[in-house]
Amino acid sequence: MINVLFASRSPGWDSYEAPLRAAFDRAGLSDIDLRTDHAPETVDYIVYAPKSDLQDFTPYVNCKAVLSLWAGVEKIVPNTTLIQPLCRMVDPGMTSGMVEWVTGHALRHHLDIDFFLDHQSGEWIQKVPPLAQERPVTVLGLGELGQACAKSLARLGFPVTGWSRTPKEVSGLTTLSGPEGLKQALSSAQILVLLLPLTEGTRDLINAETLALLPKGACLLNPGRGPLVVDADLVAALDSGQLHRATLDVFREEPLPRDHPFWGHPRITVSPHIAAETRALTAARVIAENIRRGEAKEPFLYQVDRTRGY
Amino acid sequence: MINVLFASRSPGWDSYEAPLRAAFDRAGLSDIDLRTDHAPETVDYIVYAPKSDLQDFTPYVNCKAVLSLWAGVEKIVPNTTLIQPLCRMVDPGMTSGMVEWVTGHALRHHLDIDFFLDHQSGEWIQKVPPLAQERPVTVLGLGELGQACAKSLARLGFPVTGWSRTPKEVSGLTTLSGPEGLKQALSSAQILVLLLPLTEGTRDLINAETLALLPKGACLLNPGRGPLVVDADLVAALDSGQLHRATLDVFREEPLPRDHPFWGHPRITVSPHIAAETRALTAARVIAENIRRGEAKEPFLYQVDRTRGY
Repeated sequence: MINVLFASRSPGWDSYEAPLRAAFDRAGLSDIDLRTDHAPETVDYIVYAPKSDLQDFTPYVNCKAVLSLWAGVEKIVPNTTLIQPLCRMVDPGMTSGMVEWVTGHALRHHLDIDFFLDHQSGEWIQKVPPLAQERPVTVLGLGELGQACAKSLARLGFPVTGWSRTPKEVSGLTTLSGPEGLKQALSSAQILVLLLPLTEGTRDLINAETLALLPKGACLLNPGRGPLVVDADLVAALDSGQLHRATLDVFREEPLPRDHPFWGHPRITVSPHIAAETRALTAARVIAENIRRGEAKEPFLYQVDRTRGY
Repeated sequence: MINVLFASRSPGWDSYEAPLRAAFDRAGLSDIDLRTDHAPETVDYIVYAPKSDLQDFTPYVNCKAVLSLWAGVEKIVPNTTLIQPLCRMVDPGMTSGMVEWVTGHALRHHLDIDFFLDHQSGEWIQKVPPLAQERPVTVLGLGELGQACAKSLARLGFPVTGWSRTPKEVSGLTTLSGPEGLKQALSSAQILVLLLPLTEGTRDLINAETLALLPKGACLLNPGRGPLVVDADLVAALDSGQLHRATLDVFREEPLPRDHPFWGHPRITVSPHIAAETRALTAARVIAENIRRGEAKEPFLYQVDRTRGY
């Protein structure tokens, strides 16, 4: 019997129990006892997040690994009672979710679905959208998520330009880099997707000056980081007609305050930070795979180097 | 100089002049005189649709080909004055447009974008959708359009089942056929896409009985043919909650009459037959390619066999 302790309040037992059991079955781990309340010395593996009643790992003397449900482990690494191998979460479902969100909202704006949703009272208006091949899209940021989204859009026929700070080659995309490349990337972007990390170089990058470089009537998708965008400049660009619509999944303050001008703006869609959630289904499979590896004495996936911190 | 006469009222000169000129340039045809009013005996090629002032082809004695803008030529073939080679339109843009429409609306329903559009007043509701891999989709009809749409959805991670009357193998899809296969295909379809031809076997196929086979809360997309669906049964399935939403691009009568119950129904989106329009951009390229072939004395694309009628 392999005793697995689930020790996380967020995400919680309700959302993970069934996916973990299914993932254990799928991995051929038939002799697992998964619970929230094992006696510490009997525990083989701990499924963990920092929001947990478990903060002292000392009694878990037989624990073979602590398996984090979170990608970021900066709140776990400083815990000096944790001496077992620690693995962070790298969830393929997070990338899938982001690709689905970006592709879905890009197609929504491309097809102008909102226009048709607003014309359901009996007027037959055959406003045929252009083809994707006539709709240039730019993705700012070519990390794992940016590349995956850019490739998904390119597969649908959109001419996609990807921009990154330093030069990168990605097959199927036009790639640009540096400050001059940014101007060029913005100048053709009928749909602009922000998937940049937040750094001192990217904070406030989307402001009055850069928004003015977009073709008139462009749409903006921000599933990246809230502070990439200067909120007031975005609203001004929408109100002037320079931008047609914006769909935002991330904000400077979350939840977005009820009195924020983004709420109820006729050209802004607020998406409540759902584009790239860790997904129980796929995250549970990563946990199961690491338990399988632990039992088979194979190296763990995504084991944290605690001197480096990640 | 190659004289090309544009003789079509629908689609019209306004929508085709610029795409044709661009397509001629792109094909390296630099010496074309494109107009709506050449003297008949000087005309080399006629770009044509049945809705045209030109009905007597007799004076066009030097015309090398009549190039239809319509896919269907059943209204042109009976014209006995037309003795020149006749080519029908096969527009790759029509397939692209259909794939974009189906993929966009499938993702819209998958991500429940309408829910978020309806919650823009300040409530932060983190309703995370499942991943595409958890959302089975069924496409009825595996012709060119059905296969292209099914493959696009499969590339996004949806488990896609394709159904056709007779057995077909399509890589990346689960394929089913025949009456028993249809029941199985419907029973798992959280999103159902109709891309069947209209025949006596498919008319009224989506009715109270077949809608009851879908999992509760499924969504329906019909970009195929209006009479595939029994209108009253569809409304009843939506009103009972058996179906969650339907997005329809085709109807028994078009334009859809203003007093039809589909208009304004809270769970139906009427899309005014725009999913698979012939597209000027790509259709113009087919015209240009055929003129290039005519000048190079190569065989025309899509030349009609008038004994067969298509």
